[in-house]
Amino acid sequence: MNYTLTQLPDRTEKPRQSGLTMVMDKGLSLREVEDFLSTSAGHSDIVKLGWATSFVTPNLKDKIAIYQSAGIPVYFGGTLFEAFVVRNQFDEYRKLLDKYGLEHAEVSDGSIDMNQDDKCNYIRTLATQVTVLSEVGSKDEAKIIPPYKWIQLMKSELQAGAWKVIGEAREGGTVGLFRASGEVRQGLVEEILTQVPFESILWEAPQKEQQVWFVKLLGANVNLGNIAPHEVIPLETIRLGLRGDTFSHFLDK
Amino acid sequence: MNYTLTQLPDRTEKPRQSGLTMVMDKGLSLREVEDFLSTSAGHSDIVKLGWATSFVTPNLKDKIAIYQSAGIPVYFGGTLFEAFVVRNQFDEYRKLLDKYGLEHAEVSDGSIDMNQDDKCNYIRTLATQVTVLSEVGSKDEAKIIPPYKWIQLMKSELQAGAWKVIGEAREGGTVGLFRASGEVRQGLVEEILTQVPFESILWEAPQKEQQVWFVKLLGANVNLGNIAPHEVIPLETIRLGLRGDTFSHFLDK
Amino acid sequence: MNYTLTQLPDRTEKPRQSGLTMVMDKGLSLREVEDFLSTSAGHSDIVKLGWATSFVTPNLKDKIAIYQSAGIPVYFGGTLFEAFVVRNQFDEYRKLLDKYGLEHAEVSDGSIDMNQDDKCNYIRTLATQVTVLSEVGSKDEAKIIPPYKWIQLMKSELQAGAWKVIGEAREGGTVGLFRASGEVRQGLVEEILTQVPFESILWEAPQKEQQVWFVKLLGANVNLGNIAPHEVIPLETIRLGLRGDTFSHFLDK
Repeated sequence: MNYTLTQLPDRTEKPRQSGLTMVMDKGLSLREVEDFLSTSAGHSDIVKLGWATSFVTPNLKDKIAIYQSAGIPVYFGGTLFEAFVVRNQFDEYRKLLDKYGLEHAEVSDGSIDMNQDDKCNYIRTLATQVTVLSEVGSKDEAKIIPPYKWIQLMKSELQAGAWKVIGEAREGGTVGLFRASGEVRQGLVEEILTQVPFESILWEAPQKEQQVWFVKLLGANVNLGNIAPHEVIPLETIRLGLRGDTFSHFLDK
Repeated sequence: MNYTLTQLPDRTEKPRQSGLTMVMDKGLSLREVEDFLSTSAGHSDIVKLGWATSFVTPNLKDKIAIYQSAGIPVYFGGTLFEAFVVRNQFDEYRKLLDKYGLEHAEVSDGSIDMNQDDKCNYIRTLATQVTVLSEVGSKDEAKIIPPYKWIQLMKSELQAGAWKVIGEAREGGTVGLFRASGEVRQGLVEEILTQVPFESILWEAPQKEQQVWFVKLLGANVNLGNIAPHEVIPLETIRLGLRGDTFSHFLDK
Repeated sequence: MNYTLTQLPDRTEKPRQSGLTMVMDKGLSLREVEDFLSTSAGHSDIVKLGWATSFVTPNLKDKIAIYQSAGIPVYFGGTLFEAFVVRNQFDEYRKLLDKYGLEHAEVSDGSIDMNQDDKCNYIRTLATQVTVLSEVGSKDEAKIIPPYKWIQLMKSELQAGAWKVIGEAREGGTVGLFRASGEVRQGLVEEILTQVPFESILWEAPQKEQQVWFVKLLGANVNLGNIAPHEVIPLETIRLGLRGDTFSHFLDK
């Protein structure tokens, strides 16, 4: 840090289990990745190559290598996993992870129907190969999952071997955890936390208001994801109470 | 492509007449242009230097050269054409195109009143010099053009020598083809397509929801424009059914 | 400029007292700063390192040096001043300004309660060390300041030694001068201008609609701030009547 301020919340340090920032790369160039790392590597824990952008991204191997050499693991968005599964190409997906030297993978069912046993089997299988993040929640606005069901899904996926369960939002932040307005479904989040450990959940929160909401409710070291590369530094200030929105939150009363 | 997936829609290949992606550059630096090309040249067909940003952009000649040497033609936004015309400087505009070695130009009347004969004359004149894109639709929310009139305008402009007619939107995507809410005027688009060839129209669709709407209605190879540089890769995944929004659209039923 | 157009409004030249563009940097990398300067240095007057982003930005000294060597002064966002004050670390703040060779500073009370005498004392003290910008308006949507009070605050802060007073908005542009909808509080702006000199005020206007509104009301050379780096060239075209939104504004009738 560039100077000293008192009354800042304690931040966990990398590698960490809580306080994770997961960044969404949806097509950065190699030089943009370098730029990003030069400012934000210290505040970024893991990078997702959004949905199936990896399919059309040139220099994919080089890009992954740049992130990895900065100590930041990379994984493919869950939509890519689903694209392989829906085409009966799951074995090819497993080979793909090895081909690109990935040590993390996401299991999700945001765009396809998958029964929970099958999903947990995918988690179990992939967990023998990589560290698994599994995502709960649909990308479809019409599919409302009641709170008890969120809890049941999260628990069974952690039990199947998921390292973290992800609370689904879309890039724009309007489904799953969020109402169409972008507002957080507060009761849902609170009920989930009565039964699932805080550090096991990574909340997708692409919009600033959502990040503020989670930091105010759950503190500086909440796990947050789908953060745009240019928003990692702003998010870090929100976590530390150094932006207007959370300015008073961590001060001594 | 970095790996193989079945059941993808056929994409046309460059140079193409349909499936065009027109990108809007509103002031990139030379290095940002290089970055953009390193990821997206293969998915970009033509670049517009937005409205009159070329007036205040340094290194204009170098910038155009970088795009052209990547095989991507560049043209000035229609507002610049209008700025010259409204000042009775049309001859100077023609010289400007040559000075910068441009092979495309846009004719539009989004910000000025111009009768249709005059507009078609501008198209005819410019078509002797460059490839012309002509834009239909006003930037003024109050000016509603009925469908039969859109069709008549598009037909006469194509007949006057326009290579493509552009369905006007603003950078933010809220007039012309779109309601103030950003929603597409579906009846308008469908009626236009009964009379004007699909491949002759380039639809401005700067917002993701609009891109999704056009791909679902008209397929992977619809011509889309005003795409922000960082949205070219995401758009390509929408075209291919590899983003949540169009995930099921191209799959075998 | 790359070509000649008649009927353009006169723009003041750097260094200027009116027509200022203040840019918000919320975490650019060194190379991104270079890119920004290569396109926009000529149209940028001063750069703010947004709120307390300087706390977590690596290479801070180098970044400031790059801006300064391009002739563009840099200052820390007002929230950082407040973060030091609320912790009784004001003397350290003054040393920090010297350590980083800054010649400008912002005094604000957007996130803390400060009585007006104290605020003016901070302005007076800092004005012996640097050029002071002081900000009026709360970041809290619930705190509505009536127009007579805005005027009184602005006058007393200018009298205390502020070079410019800033009309507060948030990065997203939704409080202070703006309603929750982002709409400008027109009556407020007009009443302020009956009593406070035009060139002494710098209006925060991060959104395009706000920039257009101020240029239409106050002309090409209104002072505008919180402009995103990639929006400086677009703003310059708005100032010059070379974007659709202000296209007709400066033309001879």
